[in-house]
Amino acid sequence: MNPTIKDVAQKANVSIATVSRVLHNLGGYSDKTKQKVDQTIKELKYQPNAIARGLINKRTQTIGVLFPDVSSTFSSDLLHGIDEFVHDRNYSVMVCNTDQDGKRTLKYLQLLREKQVDGIIFSSEVLKQEYYDMLESMKVPVVLVSSQTDYANVPYVKVDDYQAAYDAVDYLITKGHCSISMISGTKGDPIAGTPRVEGYRKALEAHGIPFASRYLVYGDFSYESGCRAMEAILRRTPEITAVFAASDEMAIGALSVVTKHGMNVPEDISIMGYDDLRLARMVNPPLTTVRQPLYDIGMIASEKLISMIETGEPAESQICTHSIVERQTVRAIT
Amino acid sequence: MNPTIKDVAQKANVSIATVSRVLHNLGGYSDKTKQKVDQTIKELKYQPNAIARGLINKRTQTIGVLFPDVSSTFSSDLLHGIDEFVHDRNYSVMVCNTDQDGKRTLKYLQLLREKQVDGIIFSSEVLKQEYYDMLESMKVPVVLVSSQTDYANVPYVKVDDYQAAYDAVDYLITKGHCSISMISGTKGDPIAGTPRVEGYRKALEAHGIPFASRYLVYGDFSYESGCRAMEAILRRTPEITAVFAASDEMAIGALSVVTKHGMNVPEDISIMGYDDLRLARMVNPPLTTVRQPLYDIGMIASEKLISMIETGEPAESQICTHSIVERQTVRAIT
Repeated sequence: MNPTIKDVAQKANVSIATVSRVLHNLGGYSDKTKQKVDQTIKELKYQPNAIARGLINKRTQTIGVLFPDVSSTFSSDLLHGIDEFVHDRNYSVMVCNTDQDGKRTLKYLQLLREKQVDGIIFSSEVLKQEYYDMLESMKVPVVLVSSQTDYANVPYVKVDDYQAAYDAVDYLITKGHCSISMISGTKGDPIAGTPRVEGYRKALEAHGIPFASRYLVYGDFSYESGCRAMEAILRRTPEITAVFAASDEMAIGALSVVTKHGMNVPEDISIMGYDDLRLARMVNPPLTTVRQPLYDIGMIASEKLISMIETGEPAESQICTHSIVERQTVRAIT
Repeated sequence: MNPTIKDVAQKANVSIATVSRVLHNLGGYSDKTKQKVDQTIKELKYQPNAIARGLINKRTQTIGVLFPDVSSTFSSDLLHGIDEFVHDRNYSVMVCNTDQDGKRTLKYLQLLREKQVDGIIFSSEVLKQEYYDMLESMKVPVVLVSSQTDYANVPYVKVDDYQAAYDAVDYLITKGHCSISMISGTKGDPIAGTPRVEGYRKALEAHGIPFASRYLVYGDFSYESGCRAMEAILRRTPEITAVFAASDEMAIGALSVVTKHGMNVPEDISIMGYDDLRLARMVNPPLTTVRQPLYDIGMIASEKLISMIETGEPAESQICTHSIVERQTVRAIT
């Protein structure tokens, strides 16, 4: 028979409430009492039952994280930051893979509701009305990462997608490139699609380069789609000197295709990515890219979420700083 | 006030046990009864409370997964398979990042005990006595992936590390290479270290090539360690024509260093990896490697674990088939 909190209280000669306060670090007891309780817990080998505790304090110390694709390096970089922060605060992470088209999202929200998670981090997907309604009825705080919303009570943590894309293309132009193709992410994606295309367009215009729709090709952020897009670019507009891809995976796809066709990067074509995933350093040549600080974004989102869970106060959205990481896939032309 | 299972039973005019059986798909009721119960659940908007349910049927429908490094692509490929399988069976995944030196492992096992997970998947780490004792006291089934143990009640799912390394080196030899360096993983690692070195050694010997310790360099499976190891190889044994690395990340590090020194792969040096991570296809040139079917390994481990949870019967260990994936980093020499 496992010892109960009542056994601990009796043996330590304090109230059950005091034991509970000590267990949850809530204060309101002397150091001596804390010592006595801790000692008794050790002696009796008392294991607090998180499930029963969840029924009492209404908290499960668990957060749910929804990713569109857990096997992407994008998700794993984010998860690393989330994991690091929440475990230090004694929360656990329940991971859900929603698939890119979001068809499993409602199912997983339902599951997280059943598990009574204390809060949710929602990654890289648009917060549709039906998701929002479900989340509202769950009455748990939500933080978006690499996404955005107009719902005032849902803070987001992301970079400025428009400005980051603008700066990437501006960088290519200052390196002397005027014929620049863009491989966009999914067409119509209001977060990581349209704003980045808009940044590309506006950077060209700011330098007096007219936007030409034949230079804009769509992928879906994946490596494979980057390969397909680059094949189309080489076929249709071989005169370009640089490519800006809206994800590192697509940029790396483009890099493979250029090499496959016997050309060199950056001598023949310059390539610029977006994300700065771990693998951007690992490819050959190492990828010049716009950095989203994904590990930090994961940490900041977790911090906001746990603060909302524990204080009940709303948190503010945060735009994280992007930066250009110069490696070896862009050359200056004269 | 949320409706309870009692409310559903009353309104549907069946017993609470019947509602419970319908909820858990346990059979023993007519289709008509099932329809009536499902209908009533919808009408009352009854939300089964997974936590309270956990107290009754003693199951939380949650499994814990321990990885030494959640941000590695190795972990994310495995997690993808695990996630895919368990979600279909209505289980959730709680992910713990134990760090490579395992110092957080005991802390997370304690956490998973508190969460009363139904079972645990333990990845890429040796099952030390202290972990085993903790797991025994938790009385939940455990499956190891890419690890191994002599504890009869703990099945594992992995490839044959010795044979996979043997086959990789044998492949290089049949391509005409006789001066082959190996970049091993962590020295003394009894799972992914020593057996792979042994495979390298035995394959050389089988072809009458004496093993030379100066050709064996140690890394720790990471990209960075592969870079350091390759620098050492080029300095100390520049005569080699091929390198076998015990992880794709190290192989990709070696690839970067060779290129940085102005040499070409595979023209000047052939490189062979181990794992077949997603990124093996994405590097330039695409990496020739030994494939561990990580996604499948994740699926199989989950299947075994859930079967152990639900039947209480032991499961058998399984050795998955490795294979050589020929891409473009190994050339035949004559």
